[in-house]
Amino acid sequence: MKQLDVCLTPDLLHLHKLNNSIVVVADVFRATSCMVTGLAYGVKSITPVASVEECKFLQDKGFIAAAERDARKVEGFDLDNSPFSYMNERLIGSQIAMTTTNGTLSISKAKASAVKVMIGSFLNLGALANHLRSEPYDILVLCAGWKGRPNLEDTLFAGALADALKDEFMLLEDGTLMAQRLYDQSRDNLLASVSNSSHVRRLQRLGIQKDISYCLQRDLYDIVPVLRGSTLVAMH
Amino acid sequence: MKQLDVCLTPDLLHLHKLNNSIVVVADVFRATSCMVTGLAYGVKSITPVASVEECKFLQDKGFIAAAERDARKVEGFDLDNSPFSYMNERLIGSQIAMTTTNGTLSISKAKASAVKVMIGSFLNLGALANHLRSEPYDILVLCAGWKGRPNLEDTLFAGALADALKDEFMLLEDGTLMAQRLYDQSRDNLLASVSNSSHVRRLQRLGIQKDISYCLQRDLYDIVPVLRGSTLVAMH
Repeated sequence: MKQLDVCLTPDLLHLHKLNNSIVVVADVFRATSCMVTGLAYGVKSITPVASVEECKFLQDKGFIAAAERDARKVEGFDLDNSPFSYMNERLIGSQIAMTTTNGTLSISKAKASAVKVMIGSFLNLGALANHLRSEPYDILVLCAGWKGRPNLEDTLFAGALADALKDEFMLLEDGTLMAQRLYDQSRDNLLASVSNSSHVRRLQRLGIQKDISYCLQRDLYDIVPVLRGSTLVAMH
Repeated sequence: MKQLDVCLTPDLLHLHKLNNSIVVVADVFRATSCMVTGLAYGVKSITPVASVEECKFLQDKGFIAAAERDARKVEGFDLDNSPFSYMNERLIGSQIAMTTTNGTLSISKAKASAVKVMIGSFLNLGALANHLRSEPYDILVLCAGWKGRPNLEDTLFAGALADALKDEFMLLEDGTLMAQRLYDQSRDNLLASVSNSSHVRRLQRLGIQKDISYCLQRDLYDIVPVLRGSTLVAMH
């Protein structure tokens, strides 16, 4: 039987063997929710890069560039890290380069050794679960966390995916069990559940409450972003 | 206001500043439960060491030596890692040297930069909480985990201590919030809560169910083990 495991932060990724695993990267607030939204709205591809410098390099080559650090847009780039910025006609068919504080770093770390890297968010939870059932590989859900520390929202997403796949995958590790229990406790009111988390407090100071509500909606889109080479594209 | 934070595994300790913090190390199954039990039963001191070689060195100098790896006693040492082995008349007044897979390594890592290192378990939860209220320092609860990964039982202990101290300390980080919620969910039946955790499955294979039940009892002893130099002694 295939196994599903959860890694609560990229700082613990060294403990996991990935040579038979698909890694699902989740940075619910807000990088992976932006990726899913953008690709669902017709963006052609998103190239995640770890550094602001790489993002600038791709901007100079013609990419539309999105750079976020500490939840704010970096000066000189085209897009911020709000999913609503990705619902834009001028982005249809475009190539985007993206760097964020936690999410794109996690993707960079995962792609070094995983069989495949896919992108998870509540917005595409059901489509992702359906696709993963058909794959022959184990799964590692990699929570992007916040600067190396676990965070609540990505852990809740990991628990939601584990819950959706619990009949087809073995859930052996305690990290998975804890994520699943936390999700189960709050599945009926995710917004209330995250309202006193550290990241939501950070985001609320920035006045982006509507991003938070949006990112906690399940199954808005039927796509699975997958990394091909160094670029994310949508599988429908 | 003082702050209480939780570190889910020693592999994340690099993310925490300890220069104003007491670190409470918890390895509920079973190292820190053994330490509390032994000191409560009259052991004079326990010297935690990170390696089997250091433990052997102290054994040769006259210490009673306890070495555990992968939940089993290492050949040639005097004591295993069961708390019941520490309820022994011949240990009264003795000096013990101890190395375990996870717990003593966590103590070694913590003592490099913490203000003080104390030992936590469900067995001394109330006494520990009472003592910490009187200290002027922040608290980091360091869960020993299992070979770098978070585990359920130590996380539940961290949640229990956070819950006991929530009126006197700020609980800001998501790791603390998650631990607290998991404890709150299972406080009325800890044994059922841990029954499908990875470590309990490992221990059950070794036939030590009674150790598990014992280690989950709250407030059996009124002592707080504290590290003085490189040796743990009981504060009453």
